[in-house]
Amino acid sequence: VSTPTTFPRGLRGAGLAAGIKASGAPDLGLVVADAPAPAAALFTTNQLLGAHVPVCREHLAATGGQVRALVVNSGNANCSTGAAGLAANREVCAVLAAQLGAAPEEVLFLSTGVIGAPLPTERVTAALPALLDAARRDGLDDFAHAILTTDTRTKVTGGEHVVGVAKGSGMIHPDLATMFGFLFTDAALPGDARGLLARVNARSFQRTTVDGDTSPNDTVLLWGTGAADVEVAADLERAAVHLAREIARDGEGASRLVTVRVEGAPDEEAAARVARVIATSPLTKTAVAGRDPNWGRILAAAGRAGVAFDAEAARVWVGPATVYEAGTPRLEAEDAAHAHLEVEDEVLLGIDLAAGDGSADCWTCDLTAEYVRINADYRT
Amino acid sequence: VSTPTTFPRGLRGAGLAAGIKASGAPDLGLVVADAPAPAAALFTTNQLLGAHVPVCREHLAATGGQVRALVVNSGNANCSTGAAGLAANREVCAVLAAQLGAAPEEVLFLSTGVIGAPLPTERVTAALPALLDAARRDGLDDFAHAILTTDTRTKVTGGEHVVGVAKGSGMIHPDLATMFGFLFTDAALPGDARGLLARVNARSFQRTTVDGDTSPNDTVLLWGTGAADVEVAADLERAAVHLAREIARDGEGASRLVTVRVEGAPDEEAAARVARVIATSPLTKTAVAGRDPNWGRILAAAGRAGVAFDAEAARVWVGPATVYEAGTPRLEAEDAAHAHLEVEDEVLLGIDLAAGDGSADCWTCDLTAEYVRINADYRT
Repeated sequence: VSTPTTFPRGLRGAGLAAGIKASGAPDLGLVVADAPAPAAALFTTNQLLGAHVPVCREHLAATGGQVRALVVNSGNANCSTGAAGLAANREVCAVLAAQLGAAPEEVLFLSTGVIGAPLPTERVTAALPALLDAARRDGLDDFAHAILTTDTRTKVTGGEHVVGVAKGSGMIHPDLATMFGFLFTDAALPGDARGLLARVNARSFQRTTVDGDTSPNDTVLLWGTGAADVEVAADLERAAVHLAREIARDGEGASRLVTVRVEGAPDEEAAARVARVIATSPLTKTAVAGRDPNWGRILAAAGRAGVAFDAEAARVWVGPATVYEAGTPRLEAEDAAHAHLEVEDEVLLGIDLAAGDGSADCWTCDLTAEYVRINADYRT
Repeated sequence: VSTPTTFPRGLRGAGLAAGIKASGAPDLGLVVADAPAPAAALFTTNQLLGAHVPVCREHLAATGGQVRALVVNSGNANCSTGAAGLAANREVCAVLAAQLGAAPEEVLFLSTGVIGAPLPTERVTAALPALLDAARRDGLDDFAHAILTTDTRTKVTGGEHVVGVAKGSGMIHPDLATMFGFLFTDAALPGDARGLLARVNARSFQRTTVDGDTSPNDTVLLWGTGAADVEVAADLERAAVHLAREIARDGEGASRLVTVRVEGAPDEEAAARVARVIATSPLTKTAVAGRDPNWGRILAAAGRAGVAFDAEAARVWVGPATVYEAGTPRLEAEDAAHAHLEVEDEVLLGIDLAAGDGSADCWTCDLTAEYVRINADYRT
């Protein structure tokens, strides 16, 4: 996995500052295809939905998943904005479609940022001609910058045929929404593109958590131009996993990327469930912040995940050191485990449930006082 | 609800320092009945179990729920201690039973404190004669002190016929386990004492969360001597609710007791589920720490609880102020909501889902940088 600088063949993109963010930072991104190309999307399961979620669903249904252009703004989630928010989303799609000579339904317009503020629609539509004019194969970095909110860095990965771009540093940011994951490819998508995306997502974005909160705007999009005759399923999963890890690494206030590995579960799904509970536990996450190889918290979090196992038979390790087995702690391993947490930027917490052959990784970050400061002080 | 100073008729208690805690603070408590009396208990659902959980279950099954004495130590959870931990629990029961002329199965011995350290059994058994000798009707405060771990204060409530005592300030403490709730009464328990306790628990301890972590030692016990001919079901629920709120108020690092009130849910169970998700959300809890009437986080947390509702029809309030309705924020109410969070020690976050008649309260505390410090710095 490297960091590509261009979009796959058939796609061009750009990003610029449209004046949505008060800071003047880039806040509007575009990816446009030479011709409509197949796409599939997954949206948040939250009952509260950003305006883009129902409109994107309508558009994808109307075109059978053929997408000509993707517009993304940051700085405003267009969420809890009522009927005006839906109309604003549709207006942006229609204006860009007219410029492209496309149908409005061939445009998807996604939003991320503050909840409850009206979208400054005119600023968006006014910027569209310049954005379209700027779109280039190597506009990837500009696009990646334009979609960030409280992220501290862009998240881009892939290669010649698969390019992944993401944003997100909390499932919900302080009044901000959200995680976006974009997978662009010049391969042709299979008939069941959504099924492929669902499989990829289940092992990547679905396994990342910063704070356990699911935003109203979360969206993952797969889009393939078919310009190249290549097989990219494995590349897509690799790219998505990389982005999912980057989101956890860039979690609010994070000082450590944490991989939670569960082995010996009844099956992969059970392993992922246990890993997710451990990765969401505030006590596990504060222990990592304190560089504390706290096997008791890992074991106790695993124990409340709803998966049956015998705690006496389980084994817990932190980095290279087994800190619990045969029902009791291995005190002699604590120094090595502590050193792992102290020294490494990426740390590993593992547990073998001794209850089957299923295994899964999840990714999270440590929970620091800085996370609380970011989220407590945001509006006051 | 007042603070009683004596146990109900038929019960006596005491507490002292047995040397389990390095600090020299009280760490061993006793409640003894004049004769075996009916009791019912609920235990943690965690797969990891403190040694007392299986032994208490055995003893209650063996006696049909007749209990003569309850011993509780703090400072050591006797958890992840293997076969030696089970043997230690049984030994303490047997030694006290011999002094009482009772069967070992008529004694329950509960532990809370550090996970993974061997119980200093001899210190416990050595202290039992003095403890038994000290047991008095007015030993309630001594007992309440002896069971604390990181709690900052005792938790006692009730009146003449019902006395409740609890401990806990996190579902799991830093390496410490746990929440205990004791309900003592001189009323006679009904045949289905466990059913009564389950109903009381569902509306009290079950609705409190500090950090969403469930400990391996959580125990709620109801014990009735039958010395008085009174009806106490309502008093039991009142006492349990009071204690549940006290646990949240004394949550690690807490500066606010938070009541989360959900109305308009399909039924009470759905309301409680939504309330629990809001009360567990780190973003809701950090917002309270920042005195931020953040309706977006409340609404988004409600939206991921798995209960269907129309976010456009929902209403959110903070204290006296409706901050969201008809799909959009009420900005003019933010000052009043902010003032409520700023001024009150007990704050209210409410949401009406407009999806039925079910309502429920849950209790939690704010998530402060102090919580992270307590849990990150505990062992390092």
